[in-house]
Amino acid sequence: MNYYEESLKLHEKFKGKLKVEPKVPCDNAADLSIAYTPGVAQPCLEIQKDPENSYRYTGRGNAVAVVTDGTAVLGLGDIGPAAGLPVMEGKALLMKRFAGLDAWPICLDTKDPDEIVKICKAIAPGFGAINLEDISAPRCVEIERRLIKECSIPVFHDDQHGTAIVVLAALINCMKLKKTDPASQKVVISGCGAAGSSIIRMLYAYGFHRIYAFDIDGCVDPDKADTYDSLKKELLQYVNLDHQKYANLAEGMVDADIFIGVSAPHIVTKDMVRSMKKGRIVFAMANPEPEISYEDIKEAGAYIIGTGRSDYPNQVNNLLAFPGLFRGALDAKATKITEGMKIAASEGIASLIEEKDLRTDYIIASPFDDRVVPTVAHAVGRAAEEEGVIRR
Amino acid sequence: MNYYEESLKLHEKFKGKLKVEPKVPCDNAADLSIAYTPGVAQPCLEIQKDPENSYRYTGRGNAVAVVTDGTAVLGLGDIGPAAGLPVMEGKALLMKRFAGLDAWPICLDTKDPDEIVKICKAIAPGFGAINLEDISAPRCVEIERRLIKECSIPVFHDDQHGTAIVVLAALINCMKLKKTDPASQKVVISGCGAAGSSIIRMLYAYGFHRIYAFDIDGCVDPDKADTYDSLKKELLQYVNLDHQKYANLAEGMVDADIFIGVSAPHIVTKDMVRSMKKGRIVFAMANPEPEISYEDIKEAGAYIIGTGRSDYPNQVNNLLAFPGLFRGALDAKATKITEGMKIAASEGIASLIEEKDLRTDYIIASPFDDRVVPTVAHAVGRAAEEEGVIRR
Repeated sequence: MNYYEESLKLHEKFKGKLKVEPKVPCDNAADLSIAYTPGVAQPCLEIQKDPENSYRYTGRGNAVAVVTDGTAVLGLGDIGPAAGLPVMEGKALLMKRFAGLDAWPICLDTKDPDEIVKICKAIAPGFGAINLEDISAPRCVEIERRLIKECSIPVFHDDQHGTAIVVLAALINCMKLKKTDPASQKVVISGCGAAGSSIIRMLYAYGFHRIYAFDIDGCVDPDKADTYDSLKKELLQYVNLDHQKYANLAEGMVDADIFIGVSAPHIVTKDMVRSMKKGRIVFAMANPEPEISYEDIKEAGAYIIGTGRSDYPNQVNNLLAFPGLFRGALDAKATKITEGMKIAASEGIASLIEEKDLRTDYIIASPFDDRVVPTVAHAVGRAAEEEGVIRR
Repeated sequence: MNYYEESLKLHEKFKGKLKVEPKVPCDNAADLSIAYTPGVAQPCLEIQKDPENSYRYTGRGNAVAVVTDGTAVLGLGDIGPAAGLPVMEGKALLMKRFAGLDAWPICLDTKDPDEIVKICKAIAPGFGAINLEDISAPRCVEIERRLIKECSIPVFHDDQHGTAIVVLAALINCMKLKKTDPASQKVVISGCGAAGSSIIRMLYAYGFHRIYAFDIDGCVDPDKADTYDSLKKELLQYVNLDHQKYANLAEGMVDADIFIGVSAPHIVTKDMVRSMKKGRIVFAMANPEPEISYEDIKEAGAYIIGTGRSDYPNQVNNLLAFPGLFRGALDAKATKITEGMKIAASEGIASLIEEKDLRTDYIIASPFDDRVVPTVAHAVGRAAEEEGVIRR
């Protein structure tokens, strides 16, 4: 099947993917007097008394704004806010299908981080949470951090943390299968953009402390700090703590236990995989073409292989994370999404496969597994409560 | 029935009034590959090539943002953006129920007109039109005018023009029933706020040129222009063209043919109505309590009585206007909503009752009449085409 042609046909036929439907009767004048004027004055006044009542009398507590500026849509780059709309509709569709959330696309005709922060804060009273989507790095990091600080509702940039949460979930199960621990593992990460940086931070927080990161300029190296932007500089807290001088990715991968690719197609060879340690774990997730094909990784003797694709085992799919994460944050009345809540999401996803059922080609559950969202939501909600980041 | 209590119960039970639903299948990996990645790249690219394609491949052409800052919600005043949410949900509900539109509330935590204009322009790429709602005067006028000029999609402030369109529709039929013409009529309008100003402009445009306007400071008078704000000053083009010096509303109403009230409760007496000409028309629409009760108007011998309430005949209800107006503007690919389109909406509403069926207690159709929306939409769309304010 040609997904691209089929997708165009589908989008034209249905004119998009979302519709708004009433939850209440609206068939006669009496219905209107209750749902609208004059009766509606009452819930308005209750909310005026206490804004917390907006969660009681409106859809706010189930509503997510899916906000983009269209600067980093899929792998297509800066295609503009209107062109990002099909993806935002898709994201909202998944939020409904998988977590029952009412999400609506907000496509912004501005690339100015100050403006984007201002607008997100301004629209917050009508939403329970904000999902930032497809905003280019490093602006996305700045925008998300400012919003987490300044906004009263949870804000989450899925492109940064969605994949990271699922990578950590998969690695948690890899560690169980290999019967080893994070501290012992040499991890090489290719790609230091939005997703790569978040993966690095999460793995470090979980106990992976031997991480080496590579991008187009080579190995991230504390001795080159003065040439880095602030985002990359920050990574020096987590990577290359022993100041290795790897000339390139190939050198870095020698004797590595884990390779994580969120970078570019076809930059890893079979020989590079062969140079890794025995029991090697290779997640090649560049989109749509990976750093190295599944078949080549297999041939090069990897123990566990992860991909970003649904047509191979062990798909590292952010769909495992964001629906449950938002569901959990909203149900727990969280005011933000913390590092602890993200790690809880990873642990929740990992817990879906019992240790006795783990196999090298089954380290991660399917997003269509009905247990995913409630499990992640529960874990995330508990973490929010433990950290005290809830409204009351 | 106590609408206020029932409304609170309803809002709590359903947690608001809107939900988002998928329009496309989303049940397995193949569905996702078409609705989402990788297939979704295709509609994105088509829109990047030509933003007009956003209307072809997304829900944009059926999507309306219902934007408020919560400063003039119902008759409750400045209760804040979160407290305005029940009303915005209600408005979106009506847009769906009556015109099949997918509308979503945007409640803004800013009262700064510049910010509101900026945000509306910024969110425009994801919406087909913007309905401004419950923004206080005179800011609402400035905000709408700037957006009509600067925004590429139709923008309409219902509180200004919704009632005005229906008042004109009702008066068009009153003129038929009285077998007279607008130019002959002395019109007195009480209230020069958002709704009053728009009524004045529309009536004048339709040919009512003997209009006298009153507000809390008395009769609007060209000789007092230097004490007026810009909005009120502007009204001098349309009202009191012969420089009458009415000391108060009571004096102004003597020998009037038409009284239109969009002001305050209980400010008109039976004697004031009796002082009007024979064949007098009285629309007392202050909300929730009118300028004078239906019963008192009747006793004072009015020929035709209009109210803002569903429990009396001839309800001047903006629900007759906005659903069809947006439907027509979107279907016609209008870039804005012009004065001509609003007058076309009035004429469309008026046309729903054939001349032979007009009665003093039946000058305006019910919003539940299925013909309303298609008739208004058709009239508005044709006016947009005639004026050439369409995208292609």
